[in-house]
Amino acid sequence: MDSQKNITLIGAGLVGSLLSQYLAKRGHKVSIFEKRSDMRKAGYVGGRSINLALSHRGFNGLRAMGLEEEIRKVGIPMYGRVIHQINGDVQYQAYGKEDEAIYSVSRGGLNKRLMELADENPNISIQFDERCFDVDVQNAICHFENMQTKEHTTVKSDVVLSADGAFSAARLALQTKTDRFEYSQHYLDQGYKELTIPAGPNGEFLLEKNALHIWPRNQYMLIALPNLDGSFTCTLFFPFEGNPSFTSLQTEAQVREFLTREFPNVVALSPEVVSEYMANPNGSLVTVKCFPWVHKDKLGLMGDASHAIVPFFGQGMNAGFEDCFEFGNLMDKHGDNWEALLAEFQDIRKINADAIADMAVENFIEMRDKVADQKFLLRKKIEAKLNKHFPENYVSKYSLVSFSTKPYRYALEMGFRQDALFEKVLAIQGIENNWDSDETFAKLEVLLKEFQFLN
Amino acid sequence: MDSQKNITLIGAGLVGSLLSQYLAKRGHKVSIFEKRSDMRKAGYVGGRSINLALSHRGFNGLRAMGLEEEIRKVGIPMYGRVIHQINGDVQYQAYGKEDEAIYSVSRGGLNKRLMELADENPNISIQFDERCFDVDVQNAICHFENMQTKEHTTVKSDVVLSADGAFSAARLALQTKTDRFEYSQHYLDQGYKELTIPAGPNGEFLLEKNALHIWPRNQYMLIALPNLDGSFTCTLFFPFEGNPSFTSLQTEAQVREFLTREFPNVVALSPEVVSEYMANPNGSLVTVKCFPWVHKDKLGLMGDASHAIVPFFGQGMNAGFEDCFEFGNLMDKHGDNWEALLAEFQDIRKINADAIADMAVENFIEMRDKVADQKFLLRKKIEAKLNKHFPENYVSKYSLVSFSTKPYRYALEMGFRQDALFEKVLAIQGIENNWDSDETFAKLEVLLKEFQFLN
Repeated sequence: MDSQKNITLIGAGLVGSLLSQYLAKRGHKVSIFEKRSDMRKAGYVGGRSINLALSHRGFNGLRAMGLEEEIRKVGIPMYGRVIHQINGDVQYQAYGKEDEAIYSVSRGGLNKRLMELADENPNISIQFDERCFDVDVQNAICHFENMQTKEHTTVKSDVVLSADGAFSAARLALQTKTDRFEYSQHYLDQGYKELTIPAGPNGEFLLEKNALHIWPRNQYMLIALPNLDGSFTCTLFFPFEGNPSFTSLQTEAQVREFLTREFPNVVALSPEVVSEYMANPNGSLVTVKCFPWVHKDKLGLMGDASHAIVPFFGQGMNAGFEDCFEFGNLMDKHGDNWEALLAEFQDIRKINADAIADMAVENFIEMRDKVADQKFLLRKKIEAKLNKHFPENYVSKYSLVSFSTKPYRYALEMGFRQDALFEKVLAIQGIENNWDSDETFAKLEVLLKEFQFLN
Repeated sequence: MDSQKNITLIGAGLVGSLLSQYLAKRGHKVSIFEKRSDMRKAGYVGGRSINLALSHRGFNGLRAMGLEEEIRKVGIPMYGRVIHQINGDVQYQAYGKEDEAIYSVSRGGLNKRLMELADENPNISIQFDERCFDVDVQNAICHFENMQTKEHTTVKSDVVLSADGAFSAARLALQTKTDRFEYSQHYLDQGYKELTIPAGPNGEFLLEKNALHIWPRNQYMLIALPNLDGSFTCTLFFPFEGNPSFTSLQTEAQVREFLTREFPNVVALSPEVVSEYMANPNGSLVTVKCFPWVHKDKLGLMGDASHAIVPFFGQGMNAGFEDCFEFGNLMDKHGDNWEALLAEFQDIRKINADAIADMAVENFIEMRDKVADQKFLLRKKIEAKLNKHFPENYVSKYSLVSFSTKPYRYALEMGFRQDALFEKVLAIQGIENNWDSDETFAKLEVLLKEFQFLN
């Protein structure tokens, strides 16, 4: 049995709350400090998305704590994308095989459940309203300010784990107090705004329930994910500047004209959408990369604190839960040697975090633009066929990211090879009409060998 | 006459001290707050390089304040590079035309002189030992802590200008308190250590006085700049990790063996060099990029605060002094409209700061590696000839950066075109021997036209 550590865990968000389970299960004593008030009493305070897409890596992280089935039950499986063209045409693209789905889950609901589990565990305590404003990374000392009383508390522990999000206090301490800290924060020129499609009069879903809906419009897009109450939470991804943009649309009349023209079925289903647009804030979309993530045996950053990414692959939470899962495995491997544990955690996770960060930015272009393209649709169909015939040899990048635990870096590299393959596949004469023929299949096999998907 | 502004200027370093002159000259009231003690009383405290290369842009910034001639007199002109090969061979490369030189100046001496001028000016005050720990960028309010008394002072002014270096407090406020702030800090894998070649017994220079000395060794290098007292300040640029590196050389014996093997003439001239190596700290080399640099009419970042660069083009101070010069011009242009002034300052300087940042990193490779290459030497000779014949049409990137006030961005772009040209020039059969022939000159003219250097 490894010796018990006193661990200060900053942040009771999704990643922090789950991580506390992993730590407590191995006998460590975990004190969580959360800046916000207890959302179970105070109600969920926004600033982040209302629902999230939970996929294979996220479930894998929950499974090790015995939570997979419970959470799956309160999620809504989305088996594919429904594409809403501006002319009203609707297409469906399956995400993977028949039983493969990503799940729309409530951020608040999932977070509350993970907090309840933490509360039930005698090795875990949560203190709310405690804002970390400084960390002494050399000595694992954290300084907190109580948001209500303004009182300061200093906490020394054996290890500090920081899951305090994209604006992490511990990361800021690394940036400002250690030498040679690599750091970048980069924002997209586009932001987002949440809108709602309400449930029908009898609580029914007014769009296909088991899908992620996309209204791709090249330079911007709207998406919608289902909620348990029959509503959909929509997110408009939209430029901050230019025309049209958050800046150019100022009056209700301008907003109504724009939404009606671009997203007519949404306006028809959602009588409040214009006033929602006027009332709701614009969010920004940041990618954070940094290095190192750890300091000796004293400090480790987790989740968004070390690798905040944009939401276009639906992988922010999933990557964070995978952090927890890998951290659990490494605790088993390294036992009392926390310096080795933290170092290997950084070693295996950094390269994969960078990969999903880049894929997430890239997927924005796919979603807002390519997804409506005939060539893209054709590629999806051919990819599904290749995967069916060669399930071990051809798995699309999307599936590797969303339906496997293969490293993100592997998915990124396979994606490059798949793009190169499809440059040639889509150049085959008449592929639009003959893609499903035996003759074409023979050609595809040759290309699969050429690009080393087959031996 | 434009209305007088009360300006808080953070930092009395090279850029801050010079900028105060520009501001006071236009009638503004400037309060400088400097974190360090007064170096004129306390002596210069290290952490930065002892001497610097002042070139055309820097002199241009000093000239507008009537300081060019005074500073030129206390600088040592360096007309070219002396390359010290490992086998003892020495080559000389002129930097530009006969009268073109960069000047080795004492950082401390120059900074003290600029502080004296600030003290003499009734519109400028300097307060030392005042560390800025927070800035309210919306309201131009700065918070200082006195380093001696620990007392806090809050200063509200019309405008805050922040010239507080690579770890700027005002920039940190922009990063942590405003949305969508673009920020990156990137460190090279190499660091630096300062060493000394002392003056000879009669105060004489033991190496050629009027040159910048380089010992290029591919993966690392030593450089030396002359000081007025006959000594040279050397800087070893060296990897932090690997073999050899700051980490691999641990004992005096290892250091002596390494320095004697790689830099034999330096060890011969400098009996204390091994103990200096052991005693002196290792510095790190950061590039900082950020955006925006300004906030409405309230805040502007200057010099390293917005664009810290690595020293390999000798342009850090020069770029900062050019900031001052351009800021002066824009004060004349915009008068009371500080929002327009700050916006245009950012607009014209950001693109050029990015360009010199990238050229500075690139020049590291040139200095430590290519400079000793025969093809590089040949290119330098041909470039000098082209410049002599076509002084308006062919000016090398090095000369554009060091001996002109053409925008850095222009120099960067010309550099790309010049590299493309020399790909072809150096591929001319027999160019090594015939580069100065009439026949080759005719070929060069054809290529100059092809690459649009000539019409």
